[in-house]
Order: sequence, then structure tokens, then C-alpha cells
Amino acid sequence: MEHSRADGHRTDSPGRGGSAGVPADQATVRRSNLALVLRHVSAYGPCSRSAVAVATGLNKTTVTSLVSELQARGLVKETGPQHAGSVGRPSVALVLDGSRIGALGVEVNVDYIAAFATDLAGRVLADRRIGFDAMGSSPERSLDELALMVERTVADLDRLGVALAGITVAVPGLIDTSTGTVVVAPNLGWHGVAVAERLSQADIRASIPIAVDNDANLAALAEFTSGVAAGTPDLVYLTGEVGVGGGIISGGRLLSGADGFAGEVGHVMVDPSGERCRCGRIGCWETKVGLAALVRMATPDRAYGTGGQVVRDPEERLAEIEQRWAEGDPRVDAALAKVGRWLGRGAAVLVNLFNPRVIVLGGYFAKLADRIVPAAREEMAGLGMTGAADRCRFVASNLGFGAASRGAAGVVVERALSDPTAIAIRHPSHRGA
Amino acid sequence: MEHSRADGHRTDSPGRGGSAGVPADQATVRRSNLALVLRHVSAYGPCSRSAVAVATGLNKTTVTSLVSELQARGLVKETGPQHAGSVGRPSVALVLDGSRIGALGVEVNVDYIAAFATDLAGRVLADRRIGFDAMGSSPERSLDELALMVERTVADLDRLGVALAGITVAVPGLIDTSTGTVVVAPNLGWHGVAVAERLSQADIRASIPIAVDNDANLAALAEFTSGVAAGTPDLVYLTGEVGVGGGIISGGRLLSGADGFAGEVGHVMVDPSGERCRCGRIGCWETKVGLAALVRMATPDRAYGTGGQVVRDPEERLAEIEQRWAEGDPRVDAALAKVGRWLGRGAAVLVNLFNPRVIVLGGYFAKLADRIVPAAREEMAGLGMTGAADRCRFVASNLGFGAASRGAAGVVVERALSDPTAIAIRHPSHRGA
Repeated sequence: MEHSRADGHRTDSPGRGGSAGVPADQATVRRSNLALVLRHVSAYGPCSRSAVAVATGLNKTTVTSLVSELQARGLVKETGPQHAGSVGRPSVALVLDGSRIGALGVEVNVDYIAAFATDLAGRVLADRRIGFDAMGSSPERSLDELALMVERTVADLDRLGVALAGITVAVPGLIDTSTGTVVVAPNLGWHGVAVAERLSQADIRASIPIAVDNDANLAALAEFTSGVAAGTPDLVYLTGEVGVGGGIISGGRLLSGADGFAGEVGHVMVDPSGERCRCGRIGCWETKVGLAALVRMATPDRAYGTGGQVVRDPEERLAEIEQRWAEGDPRVDAALAKVGRWLGRGAAVLVNLFNPRVIVLGGYFAKLADRIVPAAREEMAGLGMTGAADRCRFVASNLGFGAASRGAAGVVVERALSDPTAIAIRHPSHRGA
Repeated sequence: MEHSRADGHRTDSPGRGGSAGVPADQATVRRSNLALVLRHVSAYGPCSRSAVAVATGLNKTTVTSLVSELQARGLVKETGPQHAGSVGRPSVALVLDGSRIGALGVEVNVDYIAAFATDLAGRVLADRRIGFDAMGSSPERSLDELALMVERTVADLDRLGVALAGITVAVPGLIDTSTGTVVVAPNLGWHGVAVAERLSQADIRASIPIAVDNDANLAALAEFTSGVAAGTPDLVYLTGEVGVGGGIISGGRLLSGADGFAGEVGHVMVDPSGERCRCGRIGCWETKVGLAALVRMATPDRAYGTGGQVVRDPEERLAEIEQRWAEGDPRVDAALAKVGRWLGRGAAVLVNLFNPRVIVLGGYFAKLADRIVPAAREEMAGLGMTGAADRCRFVASNLGFGAASRGAAGVVVERALSDPTAIAIRHPSHRGA
């Protein structure tokens, strides 16, 4: 899942943490107990060491030692004394710290690059986006631009005294998460692009772990933690862009599948007598509800590049469609209704397989939600399982373009909370090192 | 999830266990620690109390108290002394007991009723199946037959000195698991059938918790724990019968969805210009690969009841198809090839959404696997995502008709291991009560 450059080292390597020198299984137990205490303080703090001991079933000596390590790693801090109960002497209370530890998510997509950073307590430290024609640029050029975005954001965080726990990169494609390599990202024209390796050569600290993941999966996580339907344990995220992406939260967990490729909704076959997709297959859902299908149906008079499914300047195209819709163009009306129906048909498949309570619409689906959801809802109700379809609703995302990079930062936070030993112990002489 | 009759009581109610009188959160902690110790002994036993303390991070006094409670509940027992390490005095070792505690799974399906029972350590105590025409019987009549099967099996287990931790019932339909009611089971003709309530009136002990779940979901669990692809964390189970059912294991967990309805593969729309399904919708996968489709295509000369998708005596029909295939009937060849292709097309949808490593075929798919898998594999490779489809293989289940009831028994075992307080403390005067 993580990549560090050759001269770097994992921050949880022996000799750096409190787990040095103990056998592997004891180190595992200690790591898991550190996470247990950190999660408790994160969820229930401020709380005393004794309260942590009672709630976790760990003995007090162990808790004291674990808390010391968490303090040394900058994850927990003490606040003023609290009364442990109605009687007895006051004890010092613990709260989540993490203010000096950052999580960075970056995204490269068809026409922009974005970055989103928080500290471990979720406070936003950076949120930026620049227009960039990744579709029209070479992978090398795009990675240079991405690396620049990372370097600038890291430098800003450094000035704030924040050291990064990790970086996660969102890419619209299939990712080999074990090496941080993009296997294929059709809409970027990428094949076998080693993103983590390239970023590890950026001008940033050597030891920052770098992970790469699918943009829609990460956006789904962001929806689950901070979107309009946050906390809904069974949630499907769909994003309509040049491609159609999906991320599935089931039982409160992101589905990844055997290779991290789960949720590839765009190329689900929905019409065996349909047209050929850019991917070479027949009748993919993307040929029915992708942005290119909408543009082609709504504005048939406009040239739109080579190939039936390429859309340049998607935002301009959308603006044009909205303008024509406002002018009462019947072709736009018909196109929106057709896209809505096919959105509902595909959604019915997802309802039958995942039984979600909510389908969150991102990308252009969100922008045009008012105009496509009524037809989608009707079609989903007709084709989806009774009892599941009628309890599932469409909602438009309000996270905008930041969803994937926000989810990417969230992944870094989660990883740090699950394995506190990955956060380096702070020495007074090396700020954040 | 569980149902007890009105005069019964939950075995984890206050006053029965070791958790009596403590605040809710401490009771929760104790329950989770009991489960932690039990899981450790189950996975690593024989092991000493000290070893459990080291591995779990719990202090020794706590472990001793937890082990006493687990012994009182008949879940853990002591064996001869073991050396804790290379030096030191020998300590008594603990192993999983559970030999006096049973788990019962029963299944009612189109043409049979089955029961499968194990003790908590997984030893098989009962495995039976009777032919029964549930499709041609009223729900009341079917439930009477099911209750009889339960009563007989419980009586047999009682004679063995085994008390049941629970019963789970497998039904081919959508289940409201919170009340143990079948919302709809199309192939049984059931609508709103209160299965758990009916079984709670059977002549068995009042306090046995009764749960109801979908047959394919339970069969998927059985495949995951003890089938040909056991342990594969990303596994899809498909069963071809009169209906087509599915159960999805993703990341080592059964997907249930918001209402327990996930994995309803049979009514996924695969052909918008296809024929009308018995469910009223158009182009469901079941109309392409259900047993009725095969029978209709392979033996068009045979009358097969009223309505296009009803098949009486499925096993006889299958035997006839196999015989005609052996005789070289070209219609059978063509039908098998067509079913194989549609199996592959639907499988490609599942590959894109779930990215499984294995698709386990049950029901008639398993029986005819040699004849349908080659076409299915080719179609799946062509339509499924590259990188996922090529790493996913079809395998035929070898669990036969017992898969769902075996999975149902497994669910009872899992629940007991996760919440040991649900197992009653044994008093010498009341065997198993």
C-alpha cells in the first residue's frame, strides 16, 4: 500500500518506536493496544488514564506506558485536570492531539489537479485546485505538475510546523495499490504509470509514505465521513465525468475486492445490443450515462474531438448544455431524460447487488441532479428489487471537485490512527522528523 | 436478528451471566474480552492463561476471571499441563470445548428440507435432507414440515447431551432478519411468512434463539469456511436453481446491505430488450440462466407447467437433459452453450463490481459445470475488466444441497464465539439449561 524512496525508511521500522527489540507478536499486540487507546481518546476524550483502562480492559500500568508513547509521537496530549468520578482526587485528562501531524490527499484528474490537507484531528490545513489538461498532456508532464503541487503544499505545511504522516494520490483508473502504480487510467491515457515512485523523487522528506488509490473509491470514503449522507453504512457513490466511476461503502467499509478494483461501474454491461465503448466492449453503462453520451445527445451540432467518447473542456460543455436547457432546447430535454433513465437502470443493478440506502451523485450527475434524478428514480423503482429500491434515494454530493482528495487525506488519518507506530517519535532537536 | 418466543428470554439478559449488575459499557467490555479470549483459545489452543494474557494485553487476573466464566459456560476446558516456555513451572493449558453446545442450520427450499448441526468446535452432529414439495404446498404446511425437522433434530441432539446455542433457517427469498420474517420467496410462493415466530412454537426449549436468513448468503458463508475455495476473502457464490441466487464475500465478510438484501443477482437486468421475468421485470439474469431457461431451450418438446419459468421436479429435468446431452441432442448442446455465455456475461458484471478471485457455482451450475464453464469463461474474459476477469476463476461447489444449512449452522457458531455471554451458564442440576 505504501511506497518510500530507496534512501527512506518506514517510520515503524525497528529501533525508532517504543516497540523496538520485542518479538514480532508482542510488537503487534503493542501496536494494536496503542491504536485501541488512541481511538478511545479520539472518540471519548477528554478522559483520564483510569477511564481508558476501565473501558479498554487494559491494566493501568500498560495504559500509562501506552499513553507516554502516544504523547511522544504527538498523538495525545494532556489537558487540565478532570474529576474521574463524583469522588476521589482529580486526574489529568487526555485528548487527541495530532495538530502537528498532517495528512495530504492529492488528485490528478482529466482537467485539474487538487490537494487537500488536514491535521489528524481533521482540521483543514490546505484546500487547493488548479486547472490542468492532464488528458492532453503526457503522463510525465502530468506527474511533474502533480509533484509541484505536492512540494508546494508540503512546504506550506512545513511552515505551519506540521509534518506529514502520509500522502495519498487519487487517480481515475485501476491502481496496483501494492506498488502505487496506475495499471490503466483510460481517460488520462495512462498505462503502467508508477505514480508513487515518481512522487518519492519530489523535493519532500524521504520518509513520507506515499499511497495511490482510485479516485471514486476515495471520494466514496469522503462522502461516508463528511458528505451529505455521512455515516450511512451502505452507500454507493457514483461520479459522472468523461468516465463513470463508482465507490461502494457496504456495512461501513469501502469494498476493494481482490485487487482493489471493485466498484468499476462504468464498464458494467447494461445493453448487449448497445454501442461500442471506448474500452472496446459493447453496451457499457458509460456509453449511456457518461458525459460524452450526454454531450452527443444534447448538442449533436457541436464537434467534440476525435472518437465518440472524448470530451474536451467538460465544464464548458456542461455550461453550454445548461444554457440551452434554459433556452428550452427540446434536444437537451430529451437527452437529460434519456440519461436519467439509464442512470436509473444501472442504479437498479447496484440496488439489487449492494442494497444501499443512498446513492450519492458526484461529478456532472450532481450538477444536473434536479434534471436527471426524477427519471432515474422512476426507472430504479421499476427495475430494482422491491423493499430495497423504494428505500434507496439519490442525493447530490456537495463536496464538489474536492471529494477524492478529501477522501485521500482521510485515508492517511485513518492509517495513522490504526497504527500509531507509523508516526515518528518527536525529538526536540528535529521538528517533525 | 434473533427471535425467541414470548415466554422465553435472551440468555444474555441481566442476572444470568457474569456481567450482571455492572454498567452497560463495562458489560460490553467484558463481553468483548470474553470473545477475545475465546477466539484466542479457539485459534491457538492449547495455551496457558499466561500466554493468553501476553497475547491479548489483558492482565492475568482479568484473564483468570474471564476463563472461569468461559469454563462455566462450557466453552473452554483445561487439558493436561503444558510448559509455558522453555523454562518455568508447567501451567495448565486451555482448549476450546463447546462439545456440549450445538449449532443447528435448517433449510427449506423448492423441493427439499435439510438440517445440519455441529458442535461449537465444528464437529458434525447431524446432516439430513428429505424431499418435500414446498413449491406445491402452502406456507403453513411447509412450516409444519420444517418444525418437525427441527423438533426431531433437537431431540437427537438432546440425547447426545448437546444443548443448542441457536437455530438459523435458510430460505430462498428476501428476509427481514430483524423479525425472522420472509418478505417474499418467489419460488416458494411465500409473502410475509413469519418463520421465526412459527418455529418458536415448535416443541423445543423456549430460550433457543431463532434467526432466518437468505439461503444463498448462508451458502456463500459455507463456501467461505469449508468449500472448495475456502478462505478466499473475495468470493462470489452463485446458485442456479429455479431461481438464481447469489451471496457475496468481500474482504472476508458477507455483504448484507442496508436490509440484508444484497447479492440479489437473479433479477439484475442484463438485457433491456429481453423477455419478461416471472417477477414482472424485463431482461432479468434469471430469464437467461435460471433452470427454466435451460429446460425450455434444451427440451422444448416437454411441457413444463404453467408459466414460462416454473419447473416441477428439477432433478428429474436435469437428469433428462444430461441423458439427452449424452445422446448427442444438438438442442441440448446449443442450450448449454447459450446458458454458459449468459452466465459469463452476468459474471462479468459481478467481476467489475466485486473483483472476486473465485466464483463458486452451486445448484445446477455445479452439476453442469464442465459443459457451461468454458463458454462462461470466454464471455467473462471478453466483457469483464482486464486485470480482474483474467484473475477470477469459476469453480464448482462440492457442498451440494447441504451448503445453505451448513452455512446456517456456521452463523450460529460465529455468533456464540462473538458473544460468549449468549451461552447459558451450566448448572449441574439443569443439563444444558
